Amino acid sequence: MTSDTLTLVNGEVGDSLPVSDRGLAYGDGLFETIQLLDGRPLLLEAHFARLQRGCERLGIPFEDVLKPLRADLARLRNEGTLQRFGVLKILVTRGSGGRGYLPQPGLTPTRILMLSPRGSYSGDPAVQGVRVRICDLRLAHAPRLAGIKHLNRLEQVLARAEWHDPDIREGILLDQDDCLVEGTMSNLFWVRDRRLYTPRLDRCGVEGVVRNHLLARASHEGLEVEEGRYSLSALDAADEVLLCNSLIDIWPVVALDARCWSPGPLTRRLQRLLKEDYLAC
Amino acid sequence: MTSDTLTLVNGEVGDSLPVSDRGLAYGDGLFETIQLLDGRPLLLEAHFARLQRGCERLGIPFEDVLKPLRADLARLRNEGTLQRFGVLKILVTRGSGGRGYLPQPGLTPTRILMLSPRGSYSGDPAVQGVRVRICDLRLAHAPRLAGIKHLNRLEQVLARAEWHDPDIREGILLDQDDCLVEGTMSNLFWVRDRRLYTPRLDRCGVEGVVRNHLLARASHEGLEVEEGRYSLSALDAADEVLLCNSLIDIWPVVALDARCWSPGPLTRRLQRLLKEDYLAC
Repeated sequence: MTSDTLTLVNGEVGDSLPVSDRGLAYGDGLFETIQLLDGRPLLLEAHFARLQRGCERLGIPFEDVLKPLRADLARLRNEGTLQRFGVLKILVTRGSGGRGYLPQPGLTPTRILMLSPRGSYSGDPAVQGVRVRICDLRLAHAPRLAGIKHLNRLEQVLARAEWHDPDIREGILLDQDDCLVEGTMSNLFWVRDRRLYTPRLDRCGVEGVVRNHLLARASHEGLEVEEGRYSLSALDAADEVLLCNSLIDIWPVVALDARCWSPGPLTRRLQRLLKEDYLAC
Repeated sequence: MTSDTLTLVNGEVGDSLPVSDRGLAYGDGLFETIQLLDGRPLLLEAHFARLQRGCERLGIPFEDVLKPLRADLARLRNEGTLQRFGVLKILVTRGSGGRGYLPQPGLTPTRILMLSPRGSYSGDPAVQGVRVRICDLRLAHAPRLAGIKHLNRLEQVLARAEWHDPDIREGILLDQDDCLVEGTMSNLFWVRDRRLYTPRLDRCGVEGVVRNHLLARASHEGLEVEEGRYSLSALDAADEVLLCNSLIDIWPVVALDARCWSPGPLTRRLQRLLKEDYLAC
């Protein structure tokens, strides 16, 4: 463990896991990546809510996970440890043991908390905006796994391996029907005629916590919001395009192949609203 | 580690792995499950060939994996250790480190060898045959991941969790187009008019080592073999149905819902051929 990270495995400081853990064997688990601001995990209850949805989908007993997780976090906060880091990753697996795919009843879920500094991005992408590309890989339709943040992430790994140009900050993923879904690590929104659009994620994709927060926040602000199935050509007519996740917050998209946009007023407004909510939460 | 198993992680006896391993974070790796017969890993070169195909697909440098794996196995064999176990599981991941999906260049792949006793099955399923069911879960079409034995196995976990009746030994999986694919842990064959059929696995499914061995062996024996896309109704007209994998070898299927079969002559012949090949390999 390097000194700039700290890991707790089932409540104990340590950086190793039994190789018999089903998280390793099958990707049989979930994760959350959470921004820390002065020691506060931002949108924590929304992250826990998504973790709960994931646990329910996979049949991992969430009640065995939540209470110890809260206790770990309370300890780290009281010790002043959370305050020293910028990112909290929580990883939950079904637990260790058994052979074969059948989830044995009575396994104790594994919980891992990984604290690390916030990464830095060259330039100021939240202000300047970012260039993105379209990935070749098409996301498979897997409705039983859609929306949740499970540990089966080979599609994202393969998609992210498609480009090495550091000036391209994100790859946009289409599904097997060529519908827009998301970025490899972020969710996608666009604005047209003051209406906010984002892909529906019931067949593939991850329902980002910031995505869902923005959807609710925008509706609350009286903005019209539409979730649906859209092809790439929907972006041709977009006035603004933006990406979001729990670490980057909101990045305006300024270029995708020959398409160009400027960071627009609705993007700036959503950035301000999110910042306000961070300070209030 | 219990005394009836032995694990090597990167050549060292030990049962733990850094939590920063990408195998855990993203299922970014592959595995092989191999039967040991008197200390000999059966069909080892075919397992290595599939591992190589998987490494090439994921961009994991196979040349960094194979030589140390062979050295581990030679040592375990020379020490007389392999002879004490019945199953060898090999797990290879892209390695440890980095944050985010981008595979950093220069990572050293992680290799894990897990030795355990051969599991026992009640009754004598290879002789008596087994009952199976159709799973509700439909496999997603993910051609970039089809055929290889990667660590993203949540579909199999969810499918295997669908039933608890111990008299049902396997669940048959259809894909999202309702085409037959495989069992949760095995490959599927059937016989009709002395011709052998099995689903093509270019959109989903795992190309089992025993499956591919049987395809080649049957052709060599002059049997007609057909790989294709088939609906469940293809089984209505089947004379024999069978399952195979590296640990169960070949199980005749005797019941699927209202359909019944007897273990037939071609199934018995394939069982004999496989046994001969095991002794010769």
